[in-house]
Amino acid sequence: MLRAMRVVWEALLIMLLAIFSKGTGTKSDGTISISSSHCLSWRLAVESNNVRGWRTVPTQCWHYIENYMLRGQYDRDLDLVLQQIFAYLNDIPLSNDGMDAWILDVDDTCISNLFYYNGKRFGCDPYDPVGFKAWALRGGCPAIPAVLGLFTKLVETGFKVFLVTGRDDETLAQATRDNLHNQGFIGYERLILRTQAYKGQSAVLYKSEIRKQLEGEGYRIWGNVGDQWSDLLGDSLGNRTFKLPNPMYFVP
Amino acid sequence: MLRAMRVVWEALLIMLLAIFSKGTGTKSDGTISISSSHCLSWRLAVESNNVRGWRTVPTQCWHYIENYMLRGQYDRDLDLVLQQIFAYLNDIPLSNDGMDAWILDVDDTCISNLFYYNGKRFGCDPYDPVGFKAWALRGGCPAIPAVLGLFTKLVETGFKVFLVTGRDDETLAQATRDNLHNQGFIGYERLILRTQAYKGQSAVLYKSEIRKQLEGEGYRIWGNVGDQWSDLLGDSLGNRTFKLPNPMYFVP
Repeated sequence: MLRAMRVVWEALLIMLLAIFSKGTGTKSDGTISISSSHCLSWRLAVESNNVRGWRTVPTQCWHYIENYMLRGQYDRDLDLVLQQIFAYLNDIPLSNDGMDAWILDVDDTCISNLFYYNGKRFGCDPYDPVGFKAWALRGGCPAIPAVLGLFTKLVETGFKVFLVTGRDDETLAQATRDNLHNQGFIGYERLILRTQAYKGQSAVLYKSEIRKQLEGEGYRIWGNVGDQWSDLLGDSLGNRTFKLPNPMYFVP
Repeated sequence: MLRAMRVVWEALLIMLLAIFSKGTGTKSDGTISISSSHCLSWRLAVESNNVRGWRTVPTQCWHYIENYMLRGQYDRDLDLVLQQIFAYLNDIPLSNDGMDAWILDVDDTCISNLFYYNGKRFGCDPYDPVGFKAWALRGGCPAIPAVLGLFTKLVETGFKVFLVTGRDDETLAQATRDNLHNQGFIGYERLILRTQAYKGQSAVLYKSEIRKQLEGEGYRIWGNVGDQWSDLLGDSLGNRTFKLPNPMYFVP
């Protein structure tokens, strides 16, 4: 009897520990802890473009963002946006003049820098241009599978897909091209990197300019997908924009 | 001994029930349940304008949204946006020509319809124009305290505050005016309701038109705050927009 009671007691203790020991976790009444709920507010404010020009993830949110990126919620958030994109896509009246276009950003839209940011405390460390360049030159960013699925569908459907990135044309063109290729991004119309002419310009201005040029060439931009608000603001935005989640960094 | 064991056993049972019985709750390992995490993705997608034109909250998210609105996270999300607004506000170089303007939406920006939506399953029921009109005519919407604080600060600082609402001018002007007054919204420059000329127009077009007119009068719109993306898209948006959370309904 004593033994049976000890088993029950130990089970109870383990559960209590599991529930109450986590600083960034959740509590048994279904609410989340103060730190976690604050970081959730911060993430929401970032995704809805209310917090702008931020340089680092608040340090208190390091493990919250780590959990978010690695434990499923990022993937679920991404999947829901992709569902919306597919629903929209299916209703587009495609012409057969070859001028139906779609724009995708590259970093953390087509291919992921999650491994890199893992080493940067998921964005709690400030932007490190040298470190990022070295990472990008390795050409080892994995595809974001849901977006690769979208890309493939777009190409198969007959869209001209333009990959527009703020990466430096001079130094990163070949590595980026190789990386996209080794991850299955094959069949796009053009990969557009930032040339000398756009150096120092904000991403909003640079990408607006590129989209304006594409429209000038006669393309109809049906969709525009990026993980940064700077991909989705400015001019010639396209018929519809979609914001993919990214709570790790902000590109002005 | 048997009695003591029963006490422990019952405690264990109660905890198990508390943890695992909630469809929308959280689990002991710190993750949230499938339903809850899906509704979190949905809410994020709504707030980042990825889900558009939705007519009702997904029924599976009823209690999730109820919890969100009533148990603190909505207030925390709102407070974080308000902090951003105040930080922005403090850096505005005010002139003394009396033309510095700020725009606030009314419903679920200045005053809350939470009590009403409580009776509409927090948005799982479809929009009920007759019911909403009856509710609005009662003039009993409580102020959203954080936004009343912003309003008061704006008026004190010398901004001309324009309250711009899609509510019908003919039938709801007096009730809205009274409601705002009884909740402390005193000292605004103008309350602008939807007149006959704008009936049937989308909120984006109607509100763009109003803002254009204000700019035509010479006002500089520094800030524009609303709970709907239709408050914050279109023309003459103002120098900066802020999206307040609202997962209960979508105004096209």
